[in-house]
Amino acid sequence: MIVVGGGAAGFTAALAARECGASVVLLEKGEQVGGTTRKAGVWIWVPNNPFLRGGGVEDPKRPALQYMARLARPHVYDPASPTCGLPLEEYRLIETFYDEAWHAVELLTRMGALQPHHRPDIPDYYAELPEDERPYGRVIMPQPRSRPTGGTGLEFVEALEGAARACGIPIHTSCRALKLIEEDGRVVGVAADERGRERTFRARGGVVFASGGFTHNRELMLQSFAFPLLHGAAAPSNEGDFVSIASRVGARLANMGCAWMAPIQLEQALTPEQARSNASITEIHGDSAIIVNRDGRRVVNEKAMYNDLTQAFFAWDGVYGGYPNARLFLIYDDATARLCGDDATGNPILPVDAEAPHILSAPTFSDLAAALDRRLQALGAAAAGVRLAPDFAVTLERTVERFNEYALAGADPEFHRGEKAIERFFSGPTRPGNDRNPTMHPFEPAGPYHAMILAPGTLDTKGGPMIDAGARIVGSDGHAIPGLFGAGNCVASPSGQAYWAGGATVGLAITYGRIAGLGAASLAGDH
Amino acid sequence: MIVVGGGAAGFTAALAARECGASVVLLEKGEQVGGTTRKAGVWIWVPNNPFLRGGGVEDPKRPALQYMARLARPHVYDPASPTCGLPLEEYRLIETFYDEAWHAVELLTRMGALQPHHRPDIPDYYAELPEDERPYGRVIMPQPRSRPTGGTGLEFVEALEGAARACGIPIHTSCRALKLIEEDGRVVGVAADERGRERTFRARGGVVFASGGFTHNRELMLQSFAFPLLHGAAAPSNEGDFVSIASRVGARLANMGCAWMAPIQLEQALTPEQARSNASITEIHGDSAIIVNRDGRRVVNEKAMYNDLTQAFFAWDGVYGGYPNARLFLIYDDATARLCGDDATGNPILPVDAEAPHILSAPTFSDLAAALDRRLQALGAAAAGVRLAPDFAVTLERTVERFNEYALAGADPEFHRGEKAIERFFSGPTRPGNDRNPTMHPFEPAGPYHAMILAPGTLDTKGGPMIDAGARIVGSDGHAIPGLFGAGNCVASPSGQAYWAGGATVGLAITYGRIAGLGAASLAGDH
Repeated sequence: MIVVGGGAAGFTAALAARECGASVVLLEKGEQVGGTTRKAGVWIWVPNNPFLRGGGVEDPKRPALQYMARLARPHVYDPASPTCGLPLEEYRLIETFYDEAWHAVELLTRMGALQPHHRPDIPDYYAELPEDERPYGRVIMPQPRSRPTGGTGLEFVEALEGAARACGIPIHTSCRALKLIEEDGRVVGVAADERGRERTFRARGGVVFASGGFTHNRELMLQSFAFPLLHGAAAPSNEGDFVSIASRVGARLANMGCAWMAPIQLEQALTPEQARSNASITEIHGDSAIIVNRDGRRVVNEKAMYNDLTQAFFAWDGVYGGYPNARLFLIYDDATARLCGDDATGNPILPVDAEAPHILSAPTFSDLAAALDRRLQALGAAAAGVRLAPDFAVTLERTVERFNEYALAGADPEFHRGEKAIERFFSGPTRPGNDRNPTMHPFEPAGPYHAMILAPGTLDTKGGPMIDAGARIVGSDGHAIPGLFGAGNCVASPSGQAYWAGGATVGLAITYGRIAGLGAASLAGDH
Repeated sequence: MIVVGGGAAGFTAALAARECGASVVLLEKGEQVGGTTRKAGVWIWVPNNPFLRGGGVEDPKRPALQYMARLARPHVYDPASPTCGLPLEEYRLIETFYDEAWHAVELLTRMGALQPHHRPDIPDYYAELPEDERPYGRVIMPQPRSRPTGGTGLEFVEALEGAARACGIPIHTSCRALKLIEEDGRVVGVAADERGRERTFRARGGVVFASGGFTHNRELMLQSFAFPLLHGAAAPSNEGDFVSIASRVGARLANMGCAWMAPIQLEQALTPEQARSNASITEIHGDSAIIVNRDGRRVVNEKAMYNDLTQAFFAWDGVYGGYPNARLFLIYDDATARLCGDDATGNPILPVDAEAPHILSAPTFSDLAAALDRRLQALGAAAAGVRLAPDFAVTLERTVERFNEYALAGADPEFHRGEKAIERFFSGPTRPGNDRNPTMHPFEPAGPYHAMILAPGTLDTKGGPMIDAGARIVGSDGHAIPGLFGAGNCVASPSGQAYWAGGATVGLAITYGRIAGLGAASLAGDH
């Protein structure tokens, strides 16, 4: 069978099929394997994992599914309904995830691609919801080689690739799938461009797509979201190839308006080389750091987890005739830069001596405002029409004064900063003794102060052809398309609009990657 | 040629083709023709119309396109770019709309389906934007028979149908298109279900789909929007048939996350018979009427035009873990009910003696709160998890006090109510002498007060197969699918996420309906 895409989902599919004895070939569009997994923190969210069970703590099924359903489709969630209010096929997708996620971890462990490292200390992103009966302990990480907090994406990709090569899976890099080959109404192969040469790969078993989302397809992004979302962390090869390839065989698309979202450092994301590195923000460290809009006002709980934080950019203003928050501004003091500056993935605050032209610094808020507005002007259309209000600096002074009062009181009555477990987990270092609410500390009374421009972006998109619980691609007539499977960000995510927890991405990718690989392998056996 | 759908777009396509001499058949899924047009107010937004030119007022092209582009794709709008920042094919769609809209009005006039009635007094929905050089006078209506303010949808549909029958176009009602017939890579017909019997219609020319959006397809709605949108005013037959029919021939979908949005009266929309009538709200009349959330606080400019107003329901709250504003509450005093109660399309305030179980009335805010919360509880899952905060009534009292102060001052510093021309246009009757800001008046100091539950809904959706400027359906390979055309709400709207003005819906429908009809007719001539 054929796997298209060499990230977490694709490698897991390939290993699952190979373990069953199927002959497997893996096609990777990029020059190197890894896809978005290469850049990921590699948390793996595994509900109902045996570390929980082994610790005498069960992860009962119904509340776990209620937690997932509530966040996946909030406005139709119905705790009294057998399917929690979801369409039956969607309910089956989350049920299967609950049932099968751990089997994917076991598979990767058997194949030598993963040494599971349980993290009982990591909370779900909505740990406070009544449905979340197991708010801690669903995250598994690869056993770290280089970092004490968990393996890096690069290490995980190397382990996956090593396991694949060890069991004889040929890997074709710089090999882009172009279209599907059908015979008798069944997908039997892939036509691909391998280093400029068109080639045909034929499969006795099925074809598994695990080729990533459409974060770097500008038109598809523009035409899929009704809010101002830009590209982000996903691998540059994630151009939505599978959306058009699968559309041509009649696939049914879903969740095209959903994404795994995160704010991005706008100017980092605009430079070509940085678009390929990680401009996405997943944890804003620092207790004297706030986000303000063009008026100089706070508009969001700055410690909200990244997917929620991104929603703050989407506020529509009919008088303004657009999105006044399409660009926001991270402002912090020098103590925060000294305390929290690092190059950890996802924290935008860099060491004070870092070369970082996208970070503006000035001795006063007034000077900082002038510099920010000049930068917005220089950005042209990339500023999305946002310029600072004339009294931005004055308002910012007042905003900081009020924030300082909140910090001293340890409570943020406006945005509830620091009230959730995940916010405290992601908040980074704080000043010694700041234990009332460690996510907030008054700004230093004197500068320098620092600022950067933020925009709403994706880690990757969530829309694409729908799958059923067997990871089969569903056609627009509601029936599975014979021979075609999918997993990871190239298919409509079983999570709907939810970001349940850190690692929900990779957790779903390997769970449905394994199921897709097993399905394709079983087809090979039929022949 | 074949037209699928008997609303404004479909009839215009049929009449355009017939005028060219083509033989035309029209298939309508409903028991009667008319679709959503039957329920529409029938405003027709026509940029660059000769009433403007004749009055010595030009409607210059570039600013008109800038206005449309800015609102269609706000975050990529670039006034300095030749395409205003839009992808070229999208720019061509709005340019063609500007160039051709009037020709559609002329066609319908020639065919006896429309007597144009110019309304120089109606403002665009964003008349205050600098790009809007012609903020008044782009709306055309059918010359009214029964109402002095413009023809009704029913009258317009009767005129369209009459014109079609007069020129010999056969109309098949209760005839649902099932799939396309292709020969040699070209669409040559439609298989349909006509009153339970499968029939085939073949076309020498092309096939034009004008079959409406997917407002009444629950799964497609759920899987297309990343926010809590319910069904609304569209014809009950608008179940997104064309999305799956066109997907099976490889169409490229776009704007699946966009809709023509309007709040709905939730309980009206939930009853089967009312789902078919108009629960959608397009003008909230009354100067002592406010909208509050579960906390009893205002969250929106209540006079904002309906599409903007709907955005207020979408505020995400990560601490709450959902959409706390998914249900909002319209509260008004008895003077407003007496002054503004009518059964005009789109105004939710009914006469005081109307039979209306969805309207709750009580002598005090406290009693009203208790009744509202009981109703929310009784609604179960339809309340989307929303219940009133324990101190709702107290907060509502304070909210009304503050609103009263704003009303006396004539200015709403929080939400800018009544500042835009369109808000004043839609505001309904006001108390005599209330001329400082006629959209606001203090509440009466004593009850009864009235309330109803609101939810976010659609007039219809905007997503579907993409068209090019010739109204040809575009395939996922970027090329037009030979023989297949589309117009109206069944295709990806050229307006993107914008609601430029009242009548943008019908204006686009007839403009691209005509172009589709001409295109299909010209194919017939080739044979």
